[in-house]
Amino acid sequence: MSTPVSPNSTQLYIGIDGGGTSCRARIEDAEGNVLGQGTAGPATTRIGVDSSMQAVRTASEAAVMDASLMPSALGHLIAGVGLAGIDRKGAREALMSVTHPFQDVVFASDANVACLGAHRGRDGGIVVLGTGSIGFASVKGRELRIGGYGFPISDEGSGADLGLQAVRLALRAHDGRISPSPFLLEVIEKLGSDPVALVAWAEQATAKDYASLAPVALTYAEARDPFAEEIVAEGARQAGVLIRSLVEFGAPHISLLGGLASRMVQWLSPEVAHFLSPPEADAVAGALLLARRKGSVPIDSSGQRKGAQIC
Amino acid sequence: MSTPVSPNSTQLYIGIDGGGTSCRARIEDAEGNVLGQGTAGPATTRIGVDSSMQAVRTASEAAVMDASLMPSALGHLIAGVGLAGIDRKGAREALMSVTHPFQDVVFASDANVACLGAHRGRDGGIVVLGTGSIGFASVKGRELRIGGYGFPISDEGSGADLGLQAVRLALRAHDGRISPSPFLLEVIEKLGSDPVALVAWAEQATAKDYASLAPVALTYAEARDPFAEEIVAEGARQAGVLIRSLVEFGAPHISLLGGLASRMVQWLSPEVAHFLSPPEADAVAGALLLARRKGSVPIDSSGQRKGAQIC
Repeated sequence: MSTPVSPNSTQLYIGIDGGGTSCRARIEDAEGNVLGQGTAGPATTRIGVDSSMQAVRTASEAAVMDASLMPSALGHLIAGVGLAGIDRKGAREALMSVTHPFQDVVFASDANVACLGAHRGRDGGIVVLGTGSIGFASVKGRELRIGGYGFPISDEGSGADLGLQAVRLALRAHDGRISPSPFLLEVIEKLGSDPVALVAWAEQATAKDYASLAPVALTYAEARDPFAEEIVAEGARQAGVLIRSLVEFGAPHISLLGGLASRMVQWLSPEVAHFLSPPEADAVAGALLLARRKGSVPIDSSGQRKGAQIC
Repeated sequence: MSTPVSPNSTQLYIGIDGGGTSCRARIEDAEGNVLGQGTAGPATTRIGVDSSMQAVRTASEAAVMDASLMPSALGHLIAGVGLAGIDRKGAREALMSVTHPFQDVVFASDANVACLGAHRGRDGGIVVLGTGSIGFASVKGRELRIGGYGFPISDEGSGADLGLQAVRLALRAHDGRISPSPFLLEVIEKLGSDPVALVAWAEQATAKDYASLAPVALTYAEARDPFAEEIVAEGARQAGVLIRSLVEFGAPHISLLGGLASRMVQWLSPEVAHFLSPPEADAVAGALLLARRKGSVPIDSSGQRKGAQIC
C-alpha cells in the first residue's frame, strides 16, 4: 500500500541525473536511506526543455511508485536535477520559467552533479570520456568547465572524436595516401566496404555513430595497430590536457568517468594518471546532495523555499 | 532572330560545370567559337538527381538563348556535363535513367572536367582547395581520385577543414587550455563572443559556414599568429600529400584550383610547389572536351549515338 507523505513527515529528497541517453532518479530520506528508483528516456535540453522536463517527471514518478509512495508525494520532495545541455542557449532561462512537480528544485549541469557525486561534495574534478568529453571541477566554491561543447567542434578524446579520426584515416588509407592497417581496413568494412557507402553513412552519422568506432580503435590500439595507437594516444593526450587544467585550477583529485574511462586510463601518462582517484558515488548521489543543500535553506514566511534555482 | 539548328548544320557542343554553388554552361561550335553562355543554381547531386538535372537544363536553356538559337536547338547539342556529387550512392545509376534534353550526353565528376580543362585533355592532375578539397588525376587513360569525401570525414586542407580547426582551437583558448591569440579571439568574437552562442552556431553550421573562417585564418597566418600558422601549415601539408600522391600516380603537372588556391600556394613546401602549373582552361572547357570526344563516336544504324554515358 502507498504511504502518504505530508509536510509534517521527515523531508524526502530526489536526485535526478538527466543525460543524453537516459534519465535516472532516486529518492532518499533525510538519513540517506534509498526508498525508490526510476528511469526514463533522454533528458538533455537538446530535445527541448519541455521534453527534458517530461523525462524528469517520468523518472521521478517511477521512483515514487518504486518507493510505494502516493503519487502526490512528488509535490513534497525536494529535487536536485543534473541536466545535460543546460549550458545551451536559452536553456537556463527556459528552466526557470517551466512548471515542475516538486516542492522545490535545484538544477545543475550533468557534469556538476557527476562531480559532486564523485567527491561527495568535496573539492575535486571529473573528466568524462564517453560519446562526448568534458572536464569539470569545483574548488572552494568556484567552478571550472572545459570542453564539452559538442562534436565536432570540441569533445577532444571522446568516443566521437576517436571515431571521426578513425574514419578520416580510413579514407586516406583507401586513397593510398597512407598504407592501410588491419584497423583501418576494419573501419572501412564496418561502414560498408567502400567510400561511396561510407560517405552515405557519414551524411547521416551522429556523434553516437562515430563513437561506436571508439571501442574498435581501442581494441586495435591494445594490439599495437599503429594508426589505432596514434588515434588513441592523441585522445589520451587531450584527456591529459583536461586533467592538468583541472589540477592547475586547484582540484586535488580527478575522477575519470564515462564509458571509455576504464580503457583510456592506461593510455594516460603516469604524471597525469597520478591525479586520478575512483569516484566515490554516482551523479544521482551528486544530485541528491544538491537537493539536501537546497532543503537546508530556511523556509520563508509564505511557507515556500526560495523557489527553483540553477547552480 | 533565333537561328534554327537542324541535324544537317555543323554539330554544336555544350559544356556544363555543375557545382555545389552554381551551374555554368557554354555552347561552342566545332571550331571552338563560343556561341553563348548560361548559368543556374546548384547542380550537385546532393540536392537530388532530378533537381540537379533541372539546374543543368536551366543553365543550358539560358546558353541557347544567349546564343540566339531556337529553344529546340537543345535537342541537337552534344553535352558534356561535370557534376559535383556524382560519386554519391546511387547517383550514377539515377543519372543513367534520367531523361535529358540533349541529342547526346556524357557525364563526369566535376573534378574530372576541371582536370580535363586545366590540362586541355592531356595527362595531369588537379588539387581543388575550396569549401571542400579533392585531388584528381588522369594519366594514360587511368584516373585517380583522392579525398573529397565531404566534411568533416575528409577534405583535408579545405576551407571547411581550416575553419573547424579554428573553432576547436578557439574553444580551447576560451577554456584556458591554450593561451588565446588575436586570431582565436577574433574567431570567438565572429561567432557570437561566447561559447553558448558558438555552440548554437555550430549546431546549424554547414561546411560553407566553417569555410567562411578560412580567409580569417589565412590573414592571421600571413601576420604570423602562431595558431593561424599552425592551422594553415597543417592544411598545406595535407594539400601537399594530395599533390605528391597525384605525382606518384604519374601526373606530370598539377594545377591548384578553388577559392583558396592562390593564398595556400605560398604555404606549400618548395618541393611540392615545384609540380604546380597554372590551369590552361576552366572546367566548362573540360566538359566541352568530353562533349567533342562523345561527338566523335560514330552514329549507329538507328541514327543515334551510343546514348547517355558516364565516365
